[in-house]
Amino acid sequence: MPDMRATSLDGRAVADAIAERVSARVAALPRPPKLVFVRVGEDPASASYVRSKQRLARRVGVEAETLVLPEETDQATLMASVVAVVEDEGVDGVLVQLPLPAHLDEAPVLEAIDPDKDVDGFHAVNVGRLWSGLPGLVPCTPLGLEAICDHYGITLQGQRVVIVGRSNLVGKPAAALFLRRHATVTLAHSRTRDLGDVVREADVVVAAVGRAGIVQGAMVKPGAAVLDVGMSRVDGKIVGDVAPDVWDVAGAVTPMPGGTGLVTVAMVVQNTVSAAERRIAAAR
Amino acid sequence: MPDMRATSLDGRAVADAIAERVSARVAALPRPPKLVFVRVGEDPASASYVRSKQRLARRVGVEAETLVLPEETDQATLMASVVAVVEDEGVDGVLVQLPLPAHLDEAPVLEAIDPDKDVDGFHAVNVGRLWSGLPGLVPCTPLGLEAICDHYGITLQGQRVVIVGRSNLVGKPAAALFLRRHATVTLAHSRTRDLGDVVREADVVVAAVGRAGIVQGAMVKPGAAVLDVGMSRVDGKIVGDVAPDVWDVAGAVTPMPGGTGLVTVAMVVQNTVSAAERRIAAAR
Repeated sequence: MPDMRATSLDGRAVADAIAERVSARVAALPRPPKLVFVRVGEDPASASYVRSKQRLARRVGVEAETLVLPEETDQATLMASVVAVVEDEGVDGVLVQLPLPAHLDEAPVLEAIDPDKDVDGFHAVNVGRLWSGLPGLVPCTPLGLEAICDHYGITLQGQRVVIVGRSNLVGKPAAALFLRRHATVTLAHSRTRDLGDVVREADVVVAAVGRAGIVQGAMVKPGAAVLDVGMSRVDGKIVGDVAPDVWDVAGAVTPMPGGTGLVTVAMVVQNTVSAAERRIAAAR
Repeated sequence: MPDMRATSLDGRAVADAIAERVSARVAALPRPPKLVFVRVGEDPASASYVRSKQRLARRVGVEAETLVLPEETDQATLMASVVAVVEDEGVDGVLVQLPLPAHLDEAPVLEAIDPDKDVDGFHAVNVGRLWSGLPGLVPCTPLGLEAICDHYGITLQGQRVVIVGRSNLVGKPAAALFLRRHATVTLAHSRTRDLGDVVREADVVVAAVGRAGIVQGAMVKPGAAVLDVGMSRVDGKIVGDVAPDVWDVAGAVTPMPGGTGLVTVAMVVQNTVSAAERRIAAAR
């Protein structure tokens, strides 16, 4: 019996290719771009995630600093700290690492970031630009999904893309991006009836709910590409939204870990360089 | 043989119900809301459309004025006129009637409108608010589609909605609204393969391309609700995107004329009252 396992869409390979292109753009700039992370408290996952972004930034020649505020920081202090970073003329990109501790309100913090330095692309102004077809900064995970498809030659135009999960950070901006690439896009979610029937229509599936194994082999059209964004901890192990039996049906799958997360990190750095390029051009 | 013709979703009835509710809200305000239309040139369709909006505004107690600029107005003069209206403290809503004459650029004009007076909901800030789940002004045609469904008891939660046409004015904001109502939403368009197969999945179809009869009976699931937004002139007659044979298959259809357009007009007035309520509350 032939091996029918899906191709693994290697996030490391895509991230490396992006890093190489971004390095060349940095080298062409009159000064290095500068990225500042704001992190509150000592959540180990957040700290590790910021470290990996910072490491890649430095590798491609982007200056990266992290402002760490104590867990008990109040809203006013956090706001003032973010505003000070945003107003610093030497800073091109600002990223407030989410989630914040429960006593802090994320929305006003994100809105305090200058949309032109908002390398996460979460500011409502950037959301509006994305859906209006105007230039702006786009959320990193959806950008990464698009880059994975392009790297591996997965066609989008005219294809059916089904996105499971409608978050502001992934599902909704991914819909905007795949629509821009002329896919027919469906947004499914927790209230979707007969999820399997909906997912089975897809040439490309994006699983972005955060519920372990919600996308199963029986729900996937043979040969489809499946991009796994979900992340849960089951018995101390990190697992995605894509069940193991999907690998026996799909044509290509992103592994977890080693898939979409690595490309998201690369896109944070790419967005910083894009922001710096625009700021330098505008200052001329 | 029983009569299997679809129910007609009467736009007049929905618009009248909205006007009644909006009148009551106007009566509760300390002063009448004020809406200003800006119209360039003498396109008869635009003139007639503005007149119908103005008539409904006045009927519910909203002050409505129209600033008519000559066809040959240049971009700078138009911008200055719009800014003057926007900055007038007595004005709650500003609507620049589209399309503008070909020598004028729409995008900077729409961006010059204060998002809080943008009763068309086209400003990128309002687009971002809509997709981010923040309060803001929402485009009128999609709001009207939602109102038609609510008026006639058409369920949205968990249903499949297929939107044909991905314009900034209708298709994309309608997707945001129906998603907010917990429908599973698909955006189809000119590059969609096998449009019939996609549309046949829908419990609710929105036809918003502007190509006469593009949605045909054979593409519609029996019993589905079909909302017709398209408008074309064929042999001197106004026709929609929905072919006549859809009425033999669908459960309910909006007529053209007499359907979605009338409800769009009512939503312009409703948005003006919403804008006035927020401005009055903020000034207290």
